[in-house]
Amino acid sequence: MPEARLSVGVIGAGRIGRLHAEVLAHRVPGALLAGIVDVAGAAAREVGDRLGVPAGDDPDTLLARADVDAVLICTSTDSHASLIAAAARAGKHVFCEKPIALDLATIDGALAAVAAAGIQLQIGFNRRFDANYRRVRDAVAGGEIGRPEILHLISRDPAPPSLAYVRVSGGLFLDMTIHDFDMARFLLGEEVVEVFAVAANLVDPAIGAAGDVDTAVTTLRFASGALGTIENSRRAAYGYDQRAEVLGSLGAIATANNHPNSAVLSRAGGVHRDPPLHFFLERYAESYRDELAAFVAAVRSGAPVPVSGADGRAPVVLALAAQRSVIEGRPVRADEIGDESNIRSIDTVSGGT
Amino acid sequence: MPEARLSVGVIGAGRIGRLHAEVLAHRVPGALLAGIVDVAGAAAREVGDRLGVPAGDDPDTLLARADVDAVLICTSTDSHASLIAAAARAGKHVFCEKPIALDLATIDGALAAVAAAGIQLQIGFNRRFDANYRRVRDAVAGGEIGRPEILHLISRDPAPPSLAYVRVSGGLFLDMTIHDFDMARFLLGEEVVEVFAVAANLVDPAIGAAGDVDTAVTTLRFASGALGTIENSRRAAYGYDQRAEVLGSLGAIATANNHPNSAVLSRAGGVHRDPPLHFFLERYAESYRDELAAFVAAVRSGAPVPVSGADGRAPVVLALAAQRSVIEGRPVRADEIGDESNIRSIDTVSGGT
Amino acid sequence: MPEARLSVGVIGAGRIGRLHAEVLAHRVPGALLAGIVDVAGAAAREVGDRLGVPAGDDPDTLLARADVDAVLICTSTDSHASLIAAAARAGKHVFCEKPIALDLATIDGALAAVAAAGIQLQIGFNRRFDANYRRVRDAVAGGEIGRPEILHLISRDPAPPSLAYVRVSGGLFLDMTIHDFDMARFLLGEEVVEVFAVAANLVDPAIGAAGDVDTAVTTLRFASGALGTIENSRRAAYGYDQRAEVLGSLGAIATANNHPNSAVLSRAGGVHRDPPLHFFLERYAESYRDELAAFVAAVRSGAPVPVSGADGRAPVVLALAAQRSVIEGRPVRADEIGDESNIRSIDTVSGGT
Amino acid sequence: MPEARLSVGVIGAGRIGRLHAEVLAHRVPGALLAGIVDVAGAAAREVGDRLGVPAGDDPDTLLARADVDAVLICTSTDSHASLIAAAARAGKHVFCEKPIALDLATIDGALAAVAAAGIQLQIGFNRRFDANYRRVRDAVAGGEIGRPEILHLISRDPAPPSLAYVRVSGGLFLDMTIHDFDMARFLLGEEVVEVFAVAANLVDPAIGAAGDVDTAVTTLRFASGALGTIENSRRAAYGYDQRAEVLGSLGAIATANNHPNSAVLSRAGGVHRDPPLHFFLERYAESYRDELAAFVAAVRSGAPVPVSGADGRAPVVLALAAQRSVIEGRPVRADEIGDESNIRSIDTVSGGT
Repeated sequence: MPEARLSVGVIGAGRIGRLHAEVLAHRVPGALLAGIVDVAGAAAREVGDRLGVPAGDDPDTLLARADVDAVLICTSTDSHASLIAAAARAGKHVFCEKPIALDLATIDGALAAVAAAGIQLQIGFNRRFDANYRRVRDAVAGGEIGRPEILHLISRDPAPPSLAYVRVSGGLFLDMTIHDFDMARFLLGEEVVEVFAVAANLVDPAIGAAGDVDTAVTTLRFASGALGTIENSRRAAYGYDQRAEVLGSLGAIATANNHPNSAVLSRAGGVHRDPPLHFFLERYAESYRDELAAFVAAVRSGAPVPVSGADGRAPVVLALAAQRSVIEGRPVRADEIGDESNIRSIDTVSGGT
Repeated sequence: MPEARLSVGVIGAGRIGRLHAEVLAHRVPGALLAGIVDVAGAAAREVGDRLGVPAGDDPDTLLARADVDAVLICTSTDSHASLIAAAARAGKHVFCEKPIALDLATIDGALAAVAAAGIQLQIGFNRRFDANYRRVRDAVAGGEIGRPEILHLISRDPAPPSLAYVRVSGGLFLDMTIHDFDMARFLLGEEVVEVFAVAANLVDPAIGAAGDVDTAVTTLRFASGALGTIENSRRAAYGYDQRAEVLGSLGAIATANNHPNSAVLSRAGGVHRDPPLHFFLERYAESYRDELAAFVAAVRSGAPVPVSGADGRAPVVLALAAQRSVIEGRPVRADEIGDESNIRSIDTVSGGT
Repeated sequence: MPEARLSVGVIGAGRIGRLHAEVLAHRVPGALLAGIVDVAGAAAREVGDRLGVPAGDDPDTLLARADVDAVLICTSTDSHASLIAAAARAGKHVFCEKPIALDLATIDGALAAVAAAGIQLQIGFNRRFDANYRRVRDAVAGGEIGRPEILHLISRDPAPPSLAYVRVSGGLFLDMTIHDFDMARFLLGEEVVEVFAVAANLVDPAIGAAGDVDTAVTTLRFASGALGTIENSRRAAYGYDQRAEVLGSLGAIATANNHPNSAVLSRAGGVHRDPPLHFFLERYAESYRDELAAFVAAVRSGAPVPVSGADGRAPVVLALAAQRSVIEGRPVRADEIGDESNIRSIDTVSGGT
Repeated sequence: MPEARLSVGVIGAGRIGRLHAEVLAHRVPGALLAGIVDVAGAAAREVGDRLGVPAGDDPDTLLARADVDAVLICTSTDSHASLIAAAARAGKHVFCEKPIALDLATIDGALAAVAAAGIQLQIGFNRRFDANYRRVRDAVAGGEIGRPEILHLISRDPAPPSLAYVRVSGGLFLDMTIHDFDMARFLLGEEVVEVFAVAANLVDPAIGAAGDVDTAVTTLRFASGALGTIENSRRAAYGYDQRAEVLGSLGAIATANNHPNSAVLSRAGGVHRDPPLHFFLERYAESYRDELAAFVAAVRSGAPVPVSGADGRAPVVLALAAQRSVIEGRPVRADEIGDESNIRSIDTVSGGT
């Protein structure tokens, strides 16, 4: 590994930006936190003061610094693509939170800028770095379950996000299922070629009124012929529910949720265990560190990053296909999703359920 | 409960008929095994000799006996409906193995005969009497998980049946998924109104050559708006895999497989447990006893049987809808399945995958 | 296997006698229930009427019947030894509930009568036939965990027996731990050479007032040098708790309790499972059938029975040693327990705690 | 909380000293790593260079620094007491790894110095900060299981330490069981008044030749009358085995081991899970951070530290009592262990087994 540490700036000082900055400052070997910026300068300064790095409100000041090797883009989705392009033009490697954008034209523009600049771009699909999912992927890739036949993903949030967030999220498929589409591709190591989705508004009528759904079941067909399902809900009363199971010709592998402790309490009424971890930042804490460590290590060594720009685009295609499937009430092939604007009003989506 | 025991004859001395006869003879309070018949008279006589009851090869001899109160129909599917009708005409109560028939016209004829005779008819959906599924049903019915939102059923056989059986089985949906369609209705206590199914031939090419599929994922939409999926495979290398999970507004309930023992072996390579029970007769042994006990108790007391003729018809409708969904590549509503002959060649089904 | 079924009479129509009679009548291949007797004739007649066999109040009538091959002794402990001897003199094989007696002289007298008559004697240590314990034994015997080093047995009743029972039970060690002493010998396949026991009266002061203890921890030293502990309590609020764990040079094997179903309920408060089976007759139902099947098969084939008279004696020696250990506050070797009367007043035992 | 960060020096740059230094530098809010010293100066300098703090080979240089508020003592056991005393004289608060010393006179000398100086002393019983044990303690303290009756602790290392370490360790009870004695006091919140221990040399004859044992079972009697056992082995082929179970009048609470992931692999041979975490630094990683965070927070706020000097002394008394119990083959009360030198040659211990 090269001597010099990788100098990384963070753009965006919201919840995930603060987390990444903290992790970079203390827990990623070979990384150096170079600074943090946020359009809300006060938020950036609070982080900068605590971690002892420069802070500001303008991304360009970071991108203009010669000592900055790479940036983390942790802003809201609508600014991802233009920041990627700006960083590419400035010759900085980029780690960007998912999704790149909510439409393919914008994504393709950003990826073109990346390609033209020859920088590295990693997308923040952090669950790929979680020990449970990684073990499933390794079992599939290593042949431990033979040829994959059926995938089942369960992804349930503990509680719905705010309605303000729902309104700008792009809808359940682009905001939540996108992680599961990525996981489907990651676990089986192949492409999803067709989806069929049904969706409903069962959790909170206000979500429906905001034009979105909160419950969905998506059927997948993979290139190899394997099948799959994704179960999504915006609410699991018992906590964050994140599981995967793959059946193959030689067996199956399945994960369980992570709990804060292993203690089992037995009383007259039955046997009890504390609920699974509730908060995604706690559940996936290690994965956030490991994805940055992998990014830093890849950039320093010149190796390809583990989650590419193409990996950022593919789940968006599948999310758009799922949306269309709900609207049109039929299975939709991935190759039906083209350059044209694919996003109809989310109202239409929920009207279709 | 009345003094007199219910005198029950068994029609069919195959695997399930022998099991039922044995259970009736020894383990069902209030029942008296009256005799057994099978077109293969030798098979019936072997059972009759062992259990000390008359045996023969003609169902009519059982149906003609004044001392026989009820019959169990354990023959191949194609004779179920006519035997139900004959028993109804003879005034005998009937317990019949599933399915009643593979088409609705035949089923409706049998049910009409039952109604005309005023006898009781129970269908052999034994899994309703299994302790695991019953606990899930009780949790749903008792409000322990609130309003149901997503059902997930996993139903995997340890190994495919013989090709001879596959050819006459009616296909995966009518032979295997039919149990899961019944379970979906039982667990949620409401009707499935629409299905979408994808299917594949992944386990054994010979099954595809025989015109059937061996792997399927079926999406369900319930009358209440709840969603569901059924995962079927003809092969699970580790044994018989039979699980259910229901997410509701207040929580979730999920079952695990039954194992022959609870021992956990920890060695350098990891932590190991013996595989789940492999054979359905062993896995569901108690349910076979309990369904007969429930039948005998209901008939003796005059109460309605717990699995009615209508409960036998509904899953056939859903299986036919699933077949059509695979063929036509679209979601199919249950109310699209009418009196017309719905069964196309299974070749067409597999051609559609 | 010989053609003729083994004709077996049952002596004692209490809870366990009724169970055995029912099992013999219906569920043991090769067995024929010959009759049942009880000093309370009405209890015997109730069973006899139900199962269609002769009933009476005098064991001698059973022992005098030429058509009776074997008897099950299910009476109270104080009559076991004399009934064994009487059956031996009558040339009947014997299955006797544990313990043979509460003192060694009486046991040795019974075993001498058995030896003189050349009959077979099996002792009712039913847990040896339980699938969980059997799997542990097989792992040890088959070398799956290497050389055994530490055994841990947990044996907790759901609730204390009646005080009337406590007073005649012989005390915790002879009534309850005796099963665990047998299990220790069975699982490791070797003898316990020394015990050290501490005991207390923590559950119910009335048990202490009756001269007994209700909580005990017993340390074992095996002939091979392996160590062990037994945990006993007369009360586990959550149900019948019966577990074993063995650590060996290559790993460990451990069992869990059996539950009525596998369902797991997740709600806001946590993850919940129904408590373990509460009642020993339910928990060990299969073992009661299997021990009788093994007895009948052994006697019919002339093979040695699986739980011998010596297996009935050894745990009594260990229970007496544990009692003495509590009284004298020191480890006691099994070979210190001789022919002399070893049982001091249980008052002394509890006084010693 | 006060503004100023607590400036902490580390004495000892071995495995645990390096870990603590790293944790202090990056992961303890309110702490400032002031420097590190080790008699092997090179080891200290390696750490100091990496973390950017001064390093040296002389503890006195740290103790003489006015800007140092507290020290962590991470040296070998034989220097703990004198370093505690030196730090106390210098007015520095102390966090010291366990045990304080292997004999009570030395411990009492160190504690007297601490009392005279009025500094705070925390002992490094890190397991008290582990989420599993803490949940058990909370259940007991919160009355969730009623009045405690039986404690069972399992503590098995994955593999024996080096013989060089065994020779200076003070023996199994002072080196390994000492953690469990602390845990017994912590979980039940009361004192152990009597121990009885049996021990053996089953894992490696070289350990016996070095005068130690590698397998032990210790029975505990608590002040309240509750009972307990501790199971120790220097080897568990499957990894680090660290579990606790407490039975109380209202129920029981039990922990399981921590695994690197939750994945369960089912194949024809059975159901498999990856072994538990193997290495104590990995298994207890969070507890090492949390104990330092608690130390720093207590010292900064002036609150009592959570693991006092008395908590460091008590388990040594119990370990000495266990040693004597093995040598003399009898239960030994804690109050029999006095000021006199209690440590006989470990040879004698192993000779006694």
